Amino acid sequence: MNSRFLWTAKQLKPTLTKSKHVLTPKASLAEGEHVDLDFGDHYVGRIHFVFQKEGRHPDSPALLHFIFGEKKWELEEDNSAYHGWIAKSWIQEEWIHIDEFPAKINLSRRYAFRYCRVELLGCSQAYRVLLQEATLISETSAPEKIAIVGETDQEKAIDRVSLRTLSECMQDVFEDGPKRDHRLWLGDLRLQALVNYQTYRHNDLVKRCLYLFAGTADKNGVLSASVFTKPKVVGDGASMSDYSLLFIPTVYDYFKATKDKETLLELLPLMRTQIKLADAQMKGGVFLDPNRLGWCFIDWSLELKKRCACTGVYLYALRELIECERELGYDVKSEEARYQEVKEAAKKEFYDEKNGLFFCDGQLSFASNIWMVLGGVLSPVEGKEILLRLEERDDVIRPVTPYMMHHYLIALYECGLTGKMRNLMNEYWGKMVQDGADTFYELFDPEHPDASPYGSRSVNSYCHAWSCTPSYLLRKYFLHGEQS
Amino acid sequence: MNSRFLWTAKQLKPTLTKSKHVLTPKASLAEGEHVDLDFGDHYVGRIHFVFQKEGRHPDSPALLHFIFGEKKWELEEDNSAYHGWIAKSWIQEEWIHIDEFPAKINLSRRYAFRYCRVELLGCSQAYRVLLQEATLISETSAPEKIAIVGETDQEKAIDRVSLRTLSECMQDVFEDGPKRDHRLWLGDLRLQALVNYQTYRHNDLVKRCLYLFAGTADKNGVLSASVFTKPKVVGDGASMSDYSLLFIPTVYDYFKATKDKETLLELLPLMRTQIKLADAQMKGGVFLDPNRLGWCFIDWSLELKKRCACTGVYLYALRELIECERELGYDVKSEEARYQEVKEAAKKEFYDEKNGLFFCDGQLSFASNIWMVLGGVLSPVEGKEILLRLEERDDVIRPVTPYMMHHYLIALYECGLTGKMRNLMNEYWGKMVQDGADTFYELFDPEHPDASPYGSRSVNSYCHAWSCTPSYLLRKYFLHGEQS
Repeated sequence: MNSRFLWTAKQLKPTLTKSKHVLTPKASLAEGEHVDLDFGDHYVGRIHFVFQKEGRHPDSPALLHFIFGEKKWELEEDNSAYHGWIAKSWIQEEWIHIDEFPAKINLSRRYAFRYCRVELLGCSQAYRVLLQEATLISETSAPEKIAIVGETDQEKAIDRVSLRTLSECMQDVFEDGPKRDHRLWLGDLRLQALVNYQTYRHNDLVKRCLYLFAGTADKNGVLSASVFTKPKVVGDGASMSDYSLLFIPTVYDYFKATKDKETLLELLPLMRTQIKLADAQMKGGVFLDPNRLGWCFIDWSLELKKRCACTGVYLYALRELIECERELGYDVKSEEARYQEVKEAAKKEFYDEKNGLFFCDGQLSFASNIWMVLGGVLSPVEGKEILLRLEERDDVIRPVTPYMMHHYLIALYECGLTGKMRNLMNEYWGKMVQDGADTFYELFDPEHPDASPYGSRSVNSYCHAWSCTPSYLLRKYFLHGEQS
Repeated sequence: MNSRFLWTAKQLKPTLTKSKHVLTPKASLAEGEHVDLDFGDHYVGRIHFVFQKEGRHPDSPALLHFIFGEKKWELEEDNSAYHGWIAKSWIQEEWIHIDEFPAKINLSRRYAFRYCRVELLGCSQAYRVLLQEATLISETSAPEKIAIVGETDQEKAIDRVSLRTLSECMQDVFEDGPKRDHRLWLGDLRLQALVNYQTYRHNDLVKRCLYLFAGTADKNGVLSASVFTKPKVVGDGASMSDYSLLFIPTVYDYFKATKDKETLLELLPLMRTQIKLADAQMKGGVFLDPNRLGWCFIDWSLELKKRCACTGVYLYALRELIECERELGYDVKSEEARYQEVKEAAKKEFYDEKNGLFFCDGQLSFASNIWMVLGGVLSPVEGKEILLRLEERDDVIRPVTPYMMHHYLIALYECGLTGKMRNLMNEYWGKMVQDGADTFYELFDPEHPDASPYGSRSVNSYCHAWSCTPSYLLRKYFLHGEQS
């Protein structure tokens, strides 16, 4: 723990903008009945209710059940049957008894939702419960509304939903998703920050998050993959090999957006450390087991083999460090030599001449090939051939998250396939819009919309930061700052 | 509503004595595990818990379920399967999420319990939940501990449990039962007051309750069977024909215990009104339908025919009124004439010469015969024969509540069967003691201990005021004030 870094992070704690949203359903409920509320958009916040009684004096308490859903179907789930492998306690529901009416019920926890079901589980026949008012106080640290961009209605819709996704995830920190973890994750932060520079420009929030990671690194400079901020700041104690490497571009992107050289110089030693820590996991220029010093994520696929992709992430990060150090006037010869060494080793280890594709221990995946492209192992021309060849294959593990899909789009861009990139963005994120998304999802496999790596879609996050990059892509690559 | 009476009741609002009971289970729970707490005796009060976490930083909320039981088996019930006809919301349980540790969880509702189960329904594998401390703040308006009486260990045990039952039901008012209704019921009050005069002597609490009933009578003087006091005082709007009549002895008993003539004179018109209201329901000296002006209770038996018993209650109440008025120096000739008229009519209508027993519309029950005895329809010698004859019968509806059982014992006393009375008290209440009762029950049928008029024992009250009369019977009839 670096207390000076943490002090800096604390000074940058943002003010939350709160807005009030009142519904007056005046719904009269008997035992077993419910009312569904729709706040019209995705919100993160706290809620209170005013209940009255109708009929005779209540001669029993009322037992109410509240369910909050980002998606409307969440209200219909039988949560008693939940058997996912992450905690059932993530499901956004509460049970409250009311002994006296009128009653103001203040649910103090924070929820992420558009829909809310209020269900009267228990009540005598002497009276009915009237839900008079539901007041949501929403919270975000996103500073203002941003003008929507896009050339088509679909692109505008995608941009609107992306912006909403990001602003919903902007709280005390950049959260990964406000429904579940409520937490600052390094891999999510990198993409959120990129979108932020093009949109909300709340650059101090990025700075705060960088210092939270730097401040919670262990004495060897190992970064936590995520940081808890409540009740006090503490790293999660688990590092992720790819996320740690991506700290390098995350800091460098911040510098490019802000020219805040002081922060860059403070964090530069930690950026360099990430390469050194990775070097210790590699042999002959490639990763032996990218999970050795912490889980390697890459994508939310449990079957994915990751040595190749992780080597690509290393190359990508090292190239960013070289560029950054060069800009600062440092000598980068040894880093450049190391880059060449790993690049050649990677090609040798993973490239399959016969297929003209990268394989990771016999497994073909988009992830491996995309990260080889992003790591600069290939020329743009070679990369283009590979990406087109990959499309033809059936025996390939495809991206399952918007996070991996983002990297695919960037790889397409790097190889000059900008038309394909834009089409794919429209297709993939457009399908979520067609699915009624108010915010974009943690996971989206158009072939299996209910898939979940957690064993149940009930705990999937439907507002997830890493899915908001179309607002970055549109502004950075397609529209060059024009606003419509 | 008589606001002057209500003002008087308000002035008499008692102070609650609060006591602290701390358990430090230090129980460490993983998801799916629970810990059972035993506070060692029945308590009415509020509870708070201190939870810590063990292991890594919590990366999910914890979902806790709390169940409170007067009986230990209540902790084991599958409450999701509850299908009784009174509200499920009476079951004493709560669900709480904890987002941050350490957490002080303050359950603000009042519970009646000895046992509490804390169950961890949802939690991640990163940590365990440690229940460090549970603090119960118990509440009662009973002023002090009372010395136990009884000639045998069993009688002492019965007295101890009776006293506890009463003190647990002494709150802002004399409640019927602190688990469920939390409410002032007229029929319960009469018996509680009798016990109170022999024990706690909190006579102002009786006075307060009398004024609550008087203050909530309607413009015709119809009394509510029960009174709500929260959030403000209001009668339940339902009258019960037998309970209304029993207002007369309840007030008269208060006067005999306190010599508070001012209160008696204030309430006397309302006592007289109860007879007049009953007269209007009768024809030829008997009740045609005792449920016409409100439910006639008598006992918690849904099959019981009640015209005969209710006529007995009328006679009992009228005799008390006559005695009271005579003591005050009033002329009671017309009341006496009415009493004789009803007495003869009742005997004619309900007495079966062949069987030598009272039948109500062809049905034989203890209730009918007991109330004919208590109403003075028979001489003690005749009454004794009837009660002994009743014992021989198999085709008779027996008492199902300690409330009816109390009246049976008094009838035995009236007929000189004091040995039988004492044996029966020892047998019936003794069986509850053997069942592990900390307090006596709303219902107790030794043949069917799980019976419930509500469709599920889960909502039965196991601390119920009307069952506390052994402490009265022991002192009034058996031990004549001696203390052991």
